[in-house]
Amino acid sequence: MEFRILGTGSATPQLQRNPSAFVVTIDNFLILIDCGEGTQYRLLEHKVKISRLRYILISHLHGDHYFGLIGLLSTLNMQKRTEPLVIYGPNGLDEIIGLQLKYSGTILNFKLNFSVTNPTGFNEILNTETIQIKTFPLKHRIDCTGFLLTKKKSKRKILADKLPENFPATFYKMLQEGHDVVDEFSGITYINDEYTTEGCPEKRLAYCSDTIYDETIVDYIKNVDLLYHEATFLAEHAERAKLTFHTTAAQAASIAQKANVKRLLIGHFSSRYKTTEDFLTEARAVFSDTTLSQEGENFIF
Amino acid sequence: MEFRILGTGSATPQLQRNPSAFVVTIDNFLILIDCGEGTQYRLLEHKVKISRLRYILISHLHGDHYFGLIGLLSTLNMQKRTEPLVIYGPNGLDEIIGLQLKYSGTILNFKLNFSVTNPTGFNEILNTETIQIKTFPLKHRIDCTGFLLTKKKSKRKILADKLPENFPATFYKMLQEGHDVVDEFSGITYINDEYTTEGCPEKRLAYCSDTIYDETIVDYIKNVDLLYHEATFLAEHAERAKLTFHTTAAQAASIAQKANVKRLLIGHFSSRYKTTEDFLTEARAVFSDTTLSQEGENFIF
Repeated sequence: MEFRILGTGSATPQLQRNPSAFVVTIDNFLILIDCGEGTQYRLLEHKVKISRLRYILISHLHGDHYFGLIGLLSTLNMQKRTEPLVIYGPNGLDEIIGLQLKYSGTILNFKLNFSVTNPTGFNEILNTETIQIKTFPLKHRIDCTGFLLTKKKSKRKILADKLPENFPATFYKMLQEGHDVVDEFSGITYINDEYTTEGCPEKRLAYCSDTIYDETIVDYIKNVDLLYHEATFLAEHAERAKLTFHTTAAQAASIAQKANVKRLLIGHFSSRYKTTEDFLTEARAVFSDTTLSQEGENFIF
Repeated sequence: MEFRILGTGSATPQLQRNPSAFVVTIDNFLILIDCGEGTQYRLLEHKVKISRLRYILISHLHGDHYFGLIGLLSTLNMQKRTEPLVIYGPNGLDEIIGLQLKYSGTILNFKLNFSVTNPTGFNEILNTETIQIKTFPLKHRIDCTGFLLTKKKSKRKILADKLPENFPATFYKMLQEGHDVVDEFSGITYINDEYTTEGCPEKRLAYCSDTIYDETIVDYIKNVDLLYHEATFLAEHAERAKLTFHTTAAQAASIAQKANVKRLLIGHFSSRYKTTEDFLTEARAVFSDTTLSQEGENFIF
């Protein structure tokens, strides 16, 4: 599972920080989480192959989280995409995109499926062979959801070198699923443990932006491998954070600590701070496994 | 009159070229023409004071000409703007912006006036003491208008050094308007020519993007001081230009020549061309006073 950061800024535009956008790579496809203005340029810059995009998740309808979506969709269309694309986002997003496509006279070459996220409760929105995605409520000024992505445990890996050259390909699936294989024709039994190793273990990523400090999310994100949590302010501006329904670095770290996550990544820094070192110091005092978001960085876990 | 180029690219996003956006400076206020994705970042980059924005003109509703508008408006609002702003643009723009503001829960601090442009005919949309703006039809795949901006001749400039120290301030306006002034109290007559010089002459700018080669626009833009005309393709791709309702460099130059403009500026270059020198060579063969658009450049005329 990979998590690439394309934006570390918040609502006020800044030249040195782009708005929220993150790319999750799972096996051979991509999931985009949030899509602030200019995201398609960041995708170009970091050479992300947008043809591999399969799902887009939008947390809420503040501009720094979705104003880049219509541009990206237009570009996918100009690239003659035909594969369907699924967007999970708040009520209204479908209407906004539809209206813009209508007035530009655009008829998409690909099927665009919108699925409205529920701003309350813990809801499974996707469950495939490789991935499960759930939403949970974040407390912001408008409806907002966090996302919990679970990359499922991979099938067992076949040690192809150990198998005889004439091993029937039809038996591969049985080995991947952990079964011993009896070749009734030759009478040979292939003991699974000798020909396979464990697949990649399950990995979990939680995404929380934007939200006031809210301990009720802890239950949803317990023990995740990577927690991305907004940290718009430093503790010295805790009042401002509360007023604008945002979080401080110390508060994000406190959530990480209570949820016993493996690693915390903080971002969504306010434009009032020219540097971000103080965010790291403040968060690490509460939760040591904290990392600062840096644009372009890719976490493989 | 100043004309600053913020974008030289066309619909397909390119890292080295931004989408269409141009800033006109007239005396103490700004007019933005078109507003592709990321325009607010270009305004930041080129240190354009957006608080001085008074009018926004949108030619048509293809994304590379307006997807940055909602972001810019949101930022103006976050900056606590209170001055009204007027947007001239196609039918539908009001609805799109209104919907996005609604779903983000935004109530603007300033009055936003939309004025729908007429895609047919030569129409005056603004006429103040300093500026007149007219629209004229461009032939594109969807409704599109060009803009003709006329900065009116300035009042006469007062040579303050030549006036006596006790010259009554109430007479300034009369001098600016070209009248001689008789001070009935002292009996002195101030001959206008001795105390003033000519103000700046009228200046005219025409903006044509996007359009197929169309000689009917020549009448609208005759003799302008600066013509910005799109040149998406080179002549070798004239068929493609026609098919997509765009213009080649040679065709843009032909329009400039027929309209007898003082200077031609070409831009909106297709992403298929990595360099732009060939555009200049091709256009100059037809109209020698051609310049290539370069991002950040500011034409004072």
